[in-house]
Amino acid sequence: MGKHYLLNLYGCSFVLLDDEQCLIELLENAAVASGATVVQTISKKFEPQGVTVICLLSESHISIHTWPEEGKAAVDVYTCGDCQPKIGCDIIIQQLFASNHTLSYIER
Amino acid sequence: MGKHYLLNLYGCSFVLLDDEQCLIELLENAAVASGATVVQTISKKFEPQGVTVICLLSESHISIHTWPEEGKAAVDVYTCGDCQPKIGCDIIIQQLFASNHTLSYIER
Repeated sequence: MGKHYLLNLYGCSFVLLDDEQCLIELLENAAVASGATVVQTISKKFEPQGVTVICLLSESHISIHTWPEEGKAAVDVYTCGDCQPKIGCDIIIQQLFASNHTLSYIER
Repeated sequence: MGKHYLLNLYGCSFVLLDDEQCLIELLENAAVASGATVVQTISKKFEPQGVTVICLLSESHISIHTWPEEGKAAVDVYTCGDCQPKIGCDIIIQQLFASNHTLSYIER
């Protein structure tokens, strides 16, 4: 039922992790770069900080939840079909300038 | 960064797995039963079959992707805070009458 990457990011900047519009663009770009098609994107800016963005894809979903005050984010890149979700993970790791990360792969 | 259950379901009925409204209600009920708050729910009915439902929660997300023609579904129940996402998983397993399932737990 597809390829699922669970990516935990550490040491990211507060500003980036609290920027809802930036994270929307990042996730949509990562989805497209993985070969996926974005059907719909939803997001929520929490108070006093923190953002969730979720893209519903034709090929499953991609999501990010952030804890800016701790420099942490949890990302899922889950696709079925011929996509290459690892490419999306690499883009997110790079563009959030994570000082550290863990990446788990699950074949569903 | 929370508790993440990855649930794969097998042997479910075509009709249930292709019923968008039913799956929306199921996921929202499972989220609430887990102690989570639903912020927004989005869904997509694919042609000729298959449904995706994703609930953005105050505590992360819950999602289902279905392949009715194969009797399969992939569910994620990911919550932070004091929720009990295993309760949501049990409800989904029961209400989709899965003949078989696998459940993986990841501490994020």
